[in-house]
Amino acid sequence: MSKLVSQKANFLSYIEGLQNQICNALEGVDGKARFIEDKWKRSEGGGGTTRVISNGSVIEKGGVNISAVCGKLPEILKSNLGIDHGDFFACGLSLVLHPLSPMAPTVHANYRYFELYEKDNLADLWFGGGADLTPYYLWEEDAVHFHNTMKKACEQADTSYYRQFKQQCDEYFFNKHRNEARGIGGIFFDYLRPTEQKDESHWYDFVTSAGNHFLPAYLPILEKRTHEPYDDEHRYWQEIRRGRYVEFNLIHDRGTLFGLKTNGRIESILMSLPPRVRWDYDYQPKDGSREKQLLEGLEPRDWVN
Amino acid sequence: MSKLVSQKANFLSYIEGLQNQICNALEGVDGKARFIEDKWKRSEGGGGTTRVISNGSVIEKGGVNISAVCGKLPEILKSNLGIDHGDFFACGLSLVLHPLSPMAPTVHANYRYFELYEKDNLADLWFGGGADLTPYYLWEEDAVHFHNTMKKACEQADTSYYRQFKQQCDEYFFNKHRNEARGIGGIFFDYLRPTEQKDESHWYDFVTSAGNHFLPAYLPILEKRTHEPYDDEHRYWQEIRRGRYVEFNLIHDRGTLFGLKTNGRIESILMSLPPRVRWDYDYQPKDGSREKQLLEGLEPRDWVN
Repeated sequence: MSKLVSQKANFLSYIEGLQNQICNALEGVDGKARFIEDKWKRSEGGGGTTRVISNGSVIEKGGVNISAVCGKLPEILKSNLGIDHGDFFACGLSLVLHPLSPMAPTVHANYRYFELYEKDNLADLWFGGGADLTPYYLWEEDAVHFHNTMKKACEQADTSYYRQFKQQCDEYFFNKHRNEARGIGGIFFDYLRPTEQKDESHWYDFVTSAGNHFLPAYLPILEKRTHEPYDDEHRYWQEIRRGRYVEFNLIHDRGTLFGLKTNGRIESILMSLPPRVRWDYDYQPKDGSREKQLLEGLEPRDWVN
Repeated sequence: MSKLVSQKANFLSYIEGLQNQICNALEGVDGKARFIEDKWKRSEGGGGTTRVISNGSVIEKGGVNISAVCGKLPEILKSNLGIDHGDFFACGLSLVLHPLSPMAPTVHANYRYFELYEKDNLADLWFGGGADLTPYYLWEEDAVHFHNTMKKACEQADTSYYRQFKQQCDEYFFNKHRNEARGIGGIFFDYLRPTEQKDESHWYDFVTSAGNHFLPAYLPILEKRTHEPYDDEHRYWQEIRRGRYVEFNLIHDRGTLFGLKTNGRIESILMSLPPRVRWDYDYQPKDGSREKQLLEGLEPRDWVN
């Protein structure tokens, strides 16, 4: 195989720009709260820039973080990758937004890049990421819009990707312990490595296309649903469902568990957790209610053709 | 070694009685809410009786559950125990109480018994369990009372047990990802097997002594602190700290993870989660505040001599 070409500098610069773009757009929509920024260093190498917004008029809590970490391969990666030595570099943008209104969906996205070295030589590289939507009340047109935008993002690279990465998303964001999807999905991809047919630039173009489609996919939904009326009962349901979000992130999410096991910055990792959450014993929405409709709507399906 | 003597019938009857005793006492203290009961079956064998109390005047949410399950050894137990076949039986009482008042501590306790069979013969048996306290505001006299009662429970069996099981508790109920204890501890023990010196009855007597000391350890603290005045800021802090409780249970707790991986009844397992919870980004209490005092008080120490 031909020599690997590092995408590190390009991708780092891309995620820095994307962080600015997304934060600016969100502050514009919110109109009240501003992001606060924390820069941090990791003792084993690298660091990041955490940006958090809270108690906004539209966003109750959200984070748009970038990080770039490096060093000796941590134990968890050795066993995941089936290798026993080497250095690594990993960078990415990761975001979670919890709107105040229960009518507006929570969204998660990340775009990341990984390099592996053997004796200072680049030995492996890949991209990963995706974006997925977690509504508390379901508007089918929103799910269609979100998935359509993801599909467009994929088609700039290859017409087969949307179907494949949509399925991986349905499989990944699934609360196995409850046999229930976290939300209505989106796209998820990992270990996108250069091959003879698809080189580093192909994957770089695909992942940045995915990143560029985040705002067009989410912002129109947020702007629309934040103006829907709601009351305390809708809010109650939102807090119950946010409990499922916490369960997924702490029990199943590989990114969270990776962070916890590699001495990541704990407050940056757990900024993904919702601001207010509720666990009632065996809470069941009434048959025929909008809450019950959401549960039925979580069954994975084809939102676009 | 001499033939193992099953403690199954005795211990099952013990935990049924203990569940009644604890639920009655708690209803008496609460005065408003009553336990509701759910009996459930596990498709692979066995079942349980979940009793949950919520929205009480004293207890915001709590569960006092017993279960007795059996069948083929699940994968997670095979790898934990380092054996590759056999049948098992496990029973126990497990409780978590989240008081409404932030001035009253959350408490957790469990008392359990396990049997392992090879070709229908009892091949191994052990007891496990413990009790630990998680305050939101620290009264040292409460910690001393709780630990003193645990110590008395231990001394009925052996004067060396309290020190040993107190240390195991400090080690176990620790949020490694935050380098912070969950609460002020108590006692924790596991794999208490019969030996030449200490037979089945010795461990049965010890574990039931531990169970019998639960109410004397916790009830006086609950009754006292529930009458302390508090306001919304104390409640806010309670919700923040409850977040740490969720983190421990979903990330570290072996009982919870065991339940999730062995197709346990999900609502009975997760009844341990607090009713209302909050995650703020990088929440830090003020120097010199009572909230900060709690954090300093979580450092494991000798509460009794």
